[in-house]
Amino acid sequence: MFESAEIGHSIDKERYRVEALRLRQALLDIQYDLKQKPDFPVLILIHGFDGAGRGETMKLINEWMDPRLIDTVAFGSRNDEARARPWMWRYWNQLPQKGRIGLFFGSYYSDALFDHVYGVTDHDSFDRQIFDILRFERMLSQDGALIIKFWFHLSRDKQKKRLKELEKDPATSWRVTETDWRHFEMYDHIRKYGEHMLRLTNSSVSPWIVVDGEDANYRNLTVANTVYNAIKSRLAQALPSSDAVDAPPLLAPIDNKLILDSLKLDQPMSREHYRVKLDALQGRLNHLTRDPRFQDYSLVLVFEGNDAAGKGGSIRRITQALDARTYRVIPVAAPTEEERAQPWLWRFWRNAPGRGGIAVFDRSWYGRVLVERVEGFARENDWMRAYYEINDFEHQLHENGAIVVKFWLAISNEEQLARFQAREETGFKRFKITDEDWRNRDKWDAYRLAVSDMVDRTSTSKVPWTLVEANNKYFARIKILTTLCEAIEARLGV
Amino acid sequence: MFESAEIGHSIDKERYRVEALRLRQALLDIQYDLKQKPDFPVLILIHGFDGAGRGETMKLINEWMDPRLIDTVAFGSRNDEARARPWMWRYWNQLPQKGRIGLFFGSYYSDALFDHVYGVTDHDSFDRQIFDILRFERMLSQDGALIIKFWFHLSRDKQKKRLKELEKDPATSWRVTETDWRHFEMYDHIRKYGEHMLRLTNSSVSPWIVVDGEDANYRNLTVANTVYNAIKSRLAQALPSSDAVDAPPLLAPIDNKLILDSLKLDQPMSREHYRVKLDALQGRLNHLTRDPRFQDYSLVLVFEGNDAAGKGGSIRRITQALDARTYRVIPVAAPTEEERAQPWLWRFWRNAPGRGGIAVFDRSWYGRVLVERVEGFARENDWMRAYYEINDFEHQLHENGAIVVKFWLAISNEEQLARFQAREETGFKRFKITDEDWRNRDKWDAYRLAVSDMVDRTSTSKVPWTLVEANNKYFARIKILTTLCEAIEARLGV
Repeated sequence: MFESAEIGHSIDKERYRVEALRLRQALLDIQYDLKQKPDFPVLILIHGFDGAGRGETMKLINEWMDPRLIDTVAFGSRNDEARARPWMWRYWNQLPQKGRIGLFFGSYYSDALFDHVYGVTDHDSFDRQIFDILRFERMLSQDGALIIKFWFHLSRDKQKKRLKELEKDPATSWRVTETDWRHFEMYDHIRKYGEHMLRLTNSSVSPWIVVDGEDANYRNLTVANTVYNAIKSRLAQALPSSDAVDAPPLLAPIDNKLILDSLKLDQPMSREHYRVKLDALQGRLNHLTRDPRFQDYSLVLVFEGNDAAGKGGSIRRITQALDARTYRVIPVAAPTEEERAQPWLWRFWRNAPGRGGIAVFDRSWYGRVLVERVEGFARENDWMRAYYEINDFEHQLHENGAIVVKFWLAISNEEQLARFQAREETGFKRFKITDEDWRNRDKWDAYRLAVSDMVDRTSTSKVPWTLVEANNKYFARIKILTTLCEAIEARLGV
Repeated sequence: MFESAEIGHSIDKERYRVEALRLRQALLDIQYDLKQKPDFPVLILIHGFDGAGRGETMKLINEWMDPRLIDTVAFGSRNDEARARPWMWRYWNQLPQKGRIGLFFGSYYSDALFDHVYGVTDHDSFDRQIFDILRFERMLSQDGALIIKFWFHLSRDKQKKRLKELEKDPATSWRVTETDWRHFEMYDHIRKYGEHMLRLTNSSVSPWIVVDGEDANYRNLTVANTVYNAIKSRLAQALPSSDAVDAPPLLAPIDNKLILDSLKLDQPMSREHYRVKLDALQGRLNHLTRDPRFQDYSLVLVFEGNDAAGKGGSIRRITQALDARTYRVIPVAAPTEEERAQPWLWRFWRNAPGRGGIAVFDRSWYGRVLVERVEGFARENDWMRAYYEINDFEHQLHENGAIVVKFWLAISNEEQLARFQAREETGFKRFKITDEDWRNRDKWDAYRLAVSDMVDRTSTSKVPWTLVEANNKYFARIKILTTLCEAIEARLGV
């Protein structure tokens, strides 16, 4: 895999001068084309051996292109904020917007490779991280991103020679660190595991480009030429259709009996009984979130349900029991312009709480398979793949210590009508009812099917859905608080 | 994930009669449409709990559809032939042709699930097998296959009830085996690991269909309706374009210096020296393949090279040293009609040797990225993904014990011309030179680039390419035999 990068490439000075001039102009032009038509982001990953010109390449791209349209990020070891979250979190956070270029020095590939080289991970865990990477890049590709991955290469002998040269020259000696020499001692391991990683992530839409790092002229022109051609060929294409073939249609059960139909929506609970229970449960919840063990975990609550099913009231009964410094309520509406310029899950990844933190989502990522499906805002292939992406997201949270609890608040068609009418009559609640709410009622059956598919495809033993019979608000709130306390207790081993 | 399959579905007798009649006719119609337009194969996988109607479903599909167009395969435990090869081999072997339906009772999913349930594999190995499955199904999908995956479900209580019922009735008691009861004891494990497996393989193009297995009427109509709609919607689509977005262009190195250029094609070796070395190497090779340790391995040899580079002569020098019962020489030409109706790697998987066996490929799967690329027989996206698929294939062979040795025989343009002319002049060699050979010479530069990309993308430390300087046939043959003996010795630890 590295053979061609060891045969000795070079470009003479005269040719370099001519080609460099031409490519710089071409790169700027194409960068503005991309800005004019911001359909996709470009992600450039810089990897390879120390001394093979990675840093110089970062500089080059920023010099030859317009740096205002480039987000340059150097990833080092993870800080506290990143360590408190799933390992992919910091890469999600730094994704470039459509129309822009993200230039990553080090990336998830460095985490996977060096954890293995240093013996932190065994071979199986290394492969699992590679699998995480593949799913991540596949998601990005399906979302339209252009991913260009460079591996700057040097043979063992040439790396040694290069490090010595740099060290000898007073002007560059500061650039050779102890880490560089430690990595040199590990050359064979880096090469071997690097090859394994490159092989398994060499997909046809984002292949690795291995570059001989010895001759700067050759390296610079290769990088510029590769970036230019990749962006140019992508700009000439239609937008990706997400998957080669359409997903097969999702069918309603042949007897039209859905999981929601199995609920008895009217459940008894008196106001007096509710008051007593509520006090006890709020105390229990407060206690649990102040338990020292809770600091190793985090809490992600998802509230979805029919319009007027009582999500807001339920959320308030929870937050009343919490320390205001520990939680955030995140109301989810249509995505903003900034959010639309990113993969659809990006705005939720951003809000993943760190350890000890609590995030309460009032509506959530499930909008993708509910309103966006029913209203046709997302194409079928896009919401179909969302089930997979959602499961992937939630399980990454779960494995990182998040207690993910998801509630669907269900009320009957008649109960909803009564509540809508009551809201229209009560002055201070009138803002809560809009024309859209009435329009949604017309699509009751389409939502019923979408909710059922959602539960079938995203309720798992580790991150289950709790369906809440909510015609009686008291019953609903008590069921929610009880479920929540039990979920925390189970995870904390209380 | 299984909730909706536990709420109790059923279809009454009257409705069943009407719907069944309609669906049977529709299924037959669509099956003939598929046969008329054999653009893709259909793969139906039957999984789930014992007693949930898996066997009945196999019968149903064969009764309601035309069984002559269905390949029904029940996979049990692996026989000797399968155990001597990579675990995916037997599934490759049974793939249905385009236009036909493959009905698999048990599949790679059963291997992965039950190896884990029985504790043969740990969690990491389980996930690695799931990763193997994902790559396999992705390859099939990109090739156009429609994959329909059923999981027939029963709750724990209902499974117990169902097994007891079957056991009580003398007409069905034979159907309940000890394995069924042993699996029942493992219900919780099967459910838990099954859910994990379903979640990770629930891709949008081949989602799992979970079916409540209790009521036969409901189950039958659900299966028939699902199969009908999936085939119908796929028939209405254009052929898959392999990947959503086009692969970025592969560029020649900016200095146009390719790995082939680093070879010194003229290497000295006298006929006398050759004779002596040849005898010694053939003896060494014979000895190695008769070593008892060799029975744990197999040998896969790949010969590629310029036309007239001496592949045939080199192969004969190897086979002269082998026991004729242990090896097969497989000459690879354009695929036959049967082979074109399968994924492109299928004809090579079929020929994977078992332990102790030797397969010598005279040309190989690399035609995909050589002649098919250069001549435009394969679309760019298809040959681009072939690098990944080839690496995957060869590493599966390697991990299963195959010693894979690949030779590229390189001669110069002038040497080829001289050999072509000599062949035309020598009567008995004239059949070896065709118009196509002359045409290929015109594409010398395109092949030069294709060979270089091939080496860059498929030469790995475990399965490297050996480039052979072949202007001197003696030198080439000796280098090949030496490399081969050393590769076997390294693997056997001789």
